[in-house]
Amino acid sequence: MSRRILIGDRRVDTIDPADRGLAYGDGLFETMRAHRGAVPWWDAHWARLVRGAGRLRLPVPDPARTKQEAEALLDGRDAVLKLLLTRGAGGRGYAPPESAEPMLVLSVHDLPPASPAEGLSLCWCDIRLAVQPALAGLKHSNRLEQVLARMEWDDPAIHEGLVRSSEGDVVCATAANLFILRDGSWHTPPLDRCGVAGVCRAWAMEALGAVETRLDVTDVETAEAIFLCNAVRGILPVARLGARCWAPHPQISALQARLAVEVPAFAAAFTMERS
Amino acid sequence: MSRRILIGDRRVDTIDPADRGLAYGDGLFETMRAHRGAVPWWDAHWARLVRGAGRLRLPVPDPARTKQEAEALLDGRDAVLKLLLTRGAGGRGYAPPESAEPMLVLSVHDLPPASPAEGLSLCWCDIRLAVQPALAGLKHSNRLEQVLARMEWDDPAIHEGLVRSSEGDVVCATAANLFILRDGSWHTPPLDRCGVAGVCRAWAMEALGAVETRLDVTDVETAEAIFLCNAVRGILPVARLGARCWAPHPQISALQARLAVEVPAFAAAFTMERS
Repeated sequence: MSRRILIGDRRVDTIDPADRGLAYGDGLFETMRAHRGAVPWWDAHWARLVRGAGRLRLPVPDPARTKQEAEALLDGRDAVLKLLLTRGAGGRGYAPPESAEPMLVLSVHDLPPASPAEGLSLCWCDIRLAVQPALAGLKHSNRLEQVLARMEWDDPAIHEGLVRSSEGDVVCATAANLFILRDGSWHTPPLDRCGVAGVCRAWAMEALGAVETRLDVTDVETAEAIFLCNAVRGILPVARLGARCWAPHPQISALQARLAVEVPAFAAAFTMERS
Repeated sequence: MSRRILIGDRRVDTIDPADRGLAYGDGLFETMRAHRGAVPWWDAHWARLVRGAGRLRLPVPDPARTKQEAEALLDGRDAVLKLLLTRGAGGRGYAPPESAEPMLVLSVHDLPPASPAEGLSLCWCDIRLAVQPALAGLKHSNRLEQVLARMEWDDPAIHEGLVRSSEGDVVCATAANLFILRDGSWHTPPLDRCGVAGVCRAWAMEALGAVETRLDVTDVETAEAIFLCNAVRGILPVARLGARCWAPHPQISALQARLAVEVPAFAAAFTMERS
């Protein structure tokens, strides 16, 4: 795994122990799939980072410089690229110091193992996501809820957990967005109360003509088909949720095939799943 | 400012860029007032850290070793001591790796300036605290709400902001707990939905025989007296909240005097405020 750390324009070797990302999770991140050293969804990830930075009033690093550093680090590989942008070093106290210069950490990680060809097995998580419109949709670095949700199961046969909000709406999986098929149309939960607005979710919404619909547990369990998605693993068909099982659905296979054609980064994941 | 970083039992020089505190705010902290190199409320801070670690399933560092490191670092000074405990380094993904060894950062900071003798001026913050019983009461490192709340004002004449929950209850200030006097008895908001259960709050509750009461904006604005408190600055009388003003209240002065006697670390703060 390789990594670069930038503070403003300067390359540095170490994390400042006074970084506010470490102190308060005062930052944002993006996790992207790279193919042959390039990130096909770079623009969408960058746009989300810029939106998040606006909401948190974080200065945005230079886009061209960041992309150049990322591509140098990827060095032609198929890999996962993570960007972490924090507010930078500060003293004690929540007020961001005037002088804080944002820190950017770029890191390259191995691709995750291929998803099970037969589809994912899911559980329901007990923890509810708190409703916070000021942070909803952002991929910010306050992720204790996701850590707690992910700690709820250790059965390796369970691949992901679905999480509801404190209002009872189904929101997402711990690290993926959710789509369900009902009466011939696709639905995904709105993310104006909590949850992360995924880059692959946006692609899938457009590809499917999906609509945002508040969903409860029954909506999900009685759906004709469901899948998860994220920008690293693509489209992930779901085979089981507790006692409920779903057969492979042709619309999901077709969506995977379409993604593999439009974004070849995901062709390998798709082929591996089918092999 | 001096600092020590421990991973398990080993002293290290730098923060691992893969630390989960940095990635996800996956950690807890304590901020304490030290007097002549000792922390009078050490046991209460440590107990809160242990409670939080239990909720987050974080291993707790050795208490004797930690105290010894803290005292060596304080070196006899009057100062603020901060402990930050994170889950340690991990790969991508929310599941804590089996092998993660917690990181502990101890740092010593200057005491804050004395509080204004005439009392604090407060505002109401717009952002609401999300309701999350799984994290309520803990001093965890997911503090974006507090950062956003603190960014709402930049008028130096405003010292603190009061924050409500998404349910409309008044919870706390951005970095202090709240007490109000009504009909001769003291009340402080319960912290079972959100907020941090402060160490000074626990002391003040016992000293005053205060009770936990859900409070709304009117309860606060019509109170006979109000104060804030935290474990670094002690008891902080409030003089103004928006258009509402309060004269100094003898019960608050008496509480400050009692704190200065019981915990001499706060005598200086108190004397300075009165000088």
